[in-house]
Amino acid sequence: MPPGGVEHRARQMSQIAGLVHQWATDPRIGDLISECEADADLVADPSSDSAANLRELRKSYDRATKLPSDLVTERAQTRSIATHHWQEARQNADFDLFRPWLEKNIELARRTAECYGWADGEEPWDALAEGFESGMRAANVEAVFTPLRDRLQALITELVGGPKQPSTALNHVVLPIDAQKAFVRDVITAMGFDWSRGRIDDSTHPFCGGTCVDDVRLTNRYRDDGFVDALGGGMHEAGHGLYEQGMPAEHDLTPIGTAASLGIHESQSRMWENFVGRSEAFWHWAHPRMVQAFGSAVSGLSERDMYEAMNLVEPSFIRVEADEATYNLHIMVRFELERVLMNGELAAADLPHEWNRRYKEYLGVDVPNDALGCLQDIHWSGGSFGYFPTYCLGNLYAAQIFEQVRSDVPDLDSSFAKGDFSPLKSWLNEHIHAHGSRYEASDLCVRATGKPLSAEPLLRHLEGKLRPLYGV
Amino acid sequence: MPPGGVEHRARQMSQIAGLVHQWATDPRIGDLISECEADADLVADPSSDSAANLRELRKSYDRATKLPSDLVTERAQTRSIATHHWQEARQNADFDLFRPWLEKNIELARRTAECYGWADGEEPWDALAEGFESGMRAANVEAVFTPLRDRLQALITELVGGPKQPSTALNHVVLPIDAQKAFVRDVITAMGFDWSRGRIDDSTHPFCGGTCVDDVRLTNRYRDDGFVDALGGGMHEAGHGLYEQGMPAEHDLTPIGTAASLGIHESQSRMWENFVGRSEAFWHWAHPRMVQAFGSAVSGLSERDMYEAMNLVEPSFIRVEADEATYNLHIMVRFELERVLMNGELAAADLPHEWNRRYKEYLGVDVPNDALGCLQDIHWSGGSFGYFPTYCLGNLYAAQIFEQVRSDVPDLDSSFAKGDFSPLKSWLNEHIHAHGSRYEASDLCVRATGKPLSAEPLLRHLEGKLRPLYGV
Repeated sequence: MPPGGVEHRARQMSQIAGLVHQWATDPRIGDLISECEADADLVADPSSDSAANLRELRKSYDRATKLPSDLVTERAQTRSIATHHWQEARQNADFDLFRPWLEKNIELARRTAECYGWADGEEPWDALAEGFESGMRAANVEAVFTPLRDRLQALITELVGGPKQPSTALNHVVLPIDAQKAFVRDVITAMGFDWSRGRIDDSTHPFCGGTCVDDVRLTNRYRDDGFVDALGGGMHEAGHGLYEQGMPAEHDLTPIGTAASLGIHESQSRMWENFVGRSEAFWHWAHPRMVQAFGSAVSGLSERDMYEAMNLVEPSFIRVEADEATYNLHIMVRFELERVLMNGELAAADLPHEWNRRYKEYLGVDVPNDALGCLQDIHWSGGSFGYFPTYCLGNLYAAQIFEQVRSDVPDLDSSFAKGDFSPLKSWLNEHIHAHGSRYEASDLCVRATGKPLSAEPLLRHLEGKLRPLYGV
Repeated sequence: MPPGGVEHRARQMSQIAGLVHQWATDPRIGDLISECEADADLVADPSSDSAANLRELRKSYDRATKLPSDLVTERAQTRSIATHHWQEARQNADFDLFRPWLEKNIELARRTAECYGWADGEEPWDALAEGFESGMRAANVEAVFTPLRDRLQALITELVGGPKQPSTALNHVVLPIDAQKAFVRDVITAMGFDWSRGRIDDSTHPFCGGTCVDDVRLTNRYRDDGFVDALGGGMHEAGHGLYEQGMPAEHDLTPIGTAASLGIHESQSRMWENFVGRSEAFWHWAHPRMVQAFGSAVSGLSERDMYEAMNLVEPSFIRVEADEATYNLHIMVRFELERVLMNGELAAADLPHEWNRRYKEYLGVDVPNDALGCLQDIHWSGGSFGYFPTYCLGNLYAAQIFEQVRSDVPDLDSSFAKGDFSPLKSWLNEHIHAHGSRYEASDLCVRATGKPLSAEPLLRHLEGKLRPLYGV
């Protein structure tokens, strides 16, 4: 958008947010929900279509009605302008250009949290995080993150000082972008993505969107020396896409026909990106295809070289470029900071310092400037406080679900090694996708894996895969 | 969009069309307009802000209220699906894939025309065309087109058989696309387009869109051997863009703050594309810049070679690739056909035959298949009957307005030859753009040029420029 359009878009966003809020909080909707809730036939079985839809409708109706209309429109207007200033600030690596807008976003988020309210022993961050992941609370997140951080930091230290270092050759090859696109497309086809109900295009930031279960849109990005990112990004977005295409079509456009949560959504993308795309079995299948697709540029690389390059562990300061092990530490930094921003214990002005201090402590890296530091992500410019941990939850869910798939499906690796990913896709279709949001995320996890969410599967996965790679 | 999304989008479009119609026809709006019309202060001066806005609001309110809601939603749904089938039909050059949908669109358009109604001596086409160009009637269009066609056909025959044939070298050069984009951008900058309130991107079909006077978006397309089209397309869309950026900002989002008509809009794009971009003076300025931008690929071409290549006249069967002289004949074919389709005198099934017959008669070309014939344009698939003549009106308005600019602004060619296009832009800003739709298109024409619209200026322009080029 040209800079001239900023004010007008802010007014439009505000207008639209106001209208949506007005419709969503119409007392008639509340009356209808109450009427249905009073009908025993509709709610007797909590996992019935009607009861599940009512549960979700009630949640969003109650949440929406807690906010006054002027707060909703002011937030929409401010976010729209703040995002513009965040872009400028990041371009110029000048935090001060964004600071006043971050302050405004923080103030509006704290007012929003107050409207939602929080229970005894809870805190403002909880009130906001509930909108991204039902039931997620800062205290629980902390209880998972603290031991996870310790184990990950120990693992990363082991790996970085390990006696072996993986091949990095694949990270340096230069491959024609058209051939990369064709290869990524072939992989996504093998994953089982239905092109009659989806497509893939280019964009600055990869994403998965669409309009309904039969129209799912992926995007990806390519650099001629960025094949590893392009493949990872493509499989990641296609993982989201398989979830969307696997939603129960008969419930399309109703609450049940949508994802169980952001964390579950992210588990689907991470599973294909990390548990499939960075596995030995996948590369047994992919290696000869790489040689066929890219010829002499990769013919000197072995199957093992490619597998190793996909599994480098290297602490850095950019979240979206982080490897499978360090990624979670990036999330922990953000979670800790947004929690104290919401509690009023940290002022926006002190954010860069606190950000950089944690990057040094957790990842051992010196952040060179704020563009590569606290200005790198769009989320806070859009007023999204409480969102980041859903990324880490995604990794945890993915690991736990994948362990279950391994135990349910014999010879998963043999299938992958032959390029047959349908056993995984079928399992996910049946145990995750088809349920939409019939069950809340935590219930879905128990139903699918038999256990509540735990960090152990992810740690087992990372330690089990990475230690041998680094000769530890 | 993937094919799976067709049905859902059709439902969405139908839903949106229904809501917009419901809001636009709310009796309260009618009451408010009537109340204002009864206030002498508001309507005493017909060119005052209030009177002009009321005139436009009344027009659109009365028009909207003539349509029943179910026709509006059915049209939206059908158009959306018909466009999908048109794409398939064009891809396969198979008219029969589109025919049933064209029939449905025709039937809906005729029902729509009946709802709008038409005066004695008028016809269904008039009722529809009014929505694209206020006051445009088939009889008047025919009265202009018939002599225009005769003179153009005679001119084209002269040229094609002329003793000289222009250089076509520029049409065959292969130029890097990035360098083409940079060049087109520089030309648009020289035209005076304000990049702080606009931008340009790539798309399959060039267009000009945006959200408000301060956010105007252009697109263009490039082929490495398609520089002439890229330059023409870029200047064309930028001409539309200058009009949008020149609208009275204080009236943004009200009727006055919008274009006077589609014909006037097209006059702005055609003026820059044809009257500037295909002029000798422009190429005096552009030639050294071309050599600087593209080096040896064009250094063998003289200023004259480039000017000539921009002015080739060659009858063909594709409208959007047609030259300045033959373009209008393409429009006449479409006008004649949609007129009889609306009158019920032509059945959809007979369209290909009648289309091809006219192309042979008017342009002397044999249409090789329906993809390059009656399936080439999107308009009828979207239910737009009565739109095409606005393109030709644009050429007529452009010629008449440009004659006036020439007479008002001394040394226009000297300015162009120096790359100074501001005298033209300033004149247009003052006499056309700043008025928005304060005046109806026909009134604006008289105010700006002193005369009602006539075909003479366009014929003078074409004959005066093209005959010498072909040694006639």
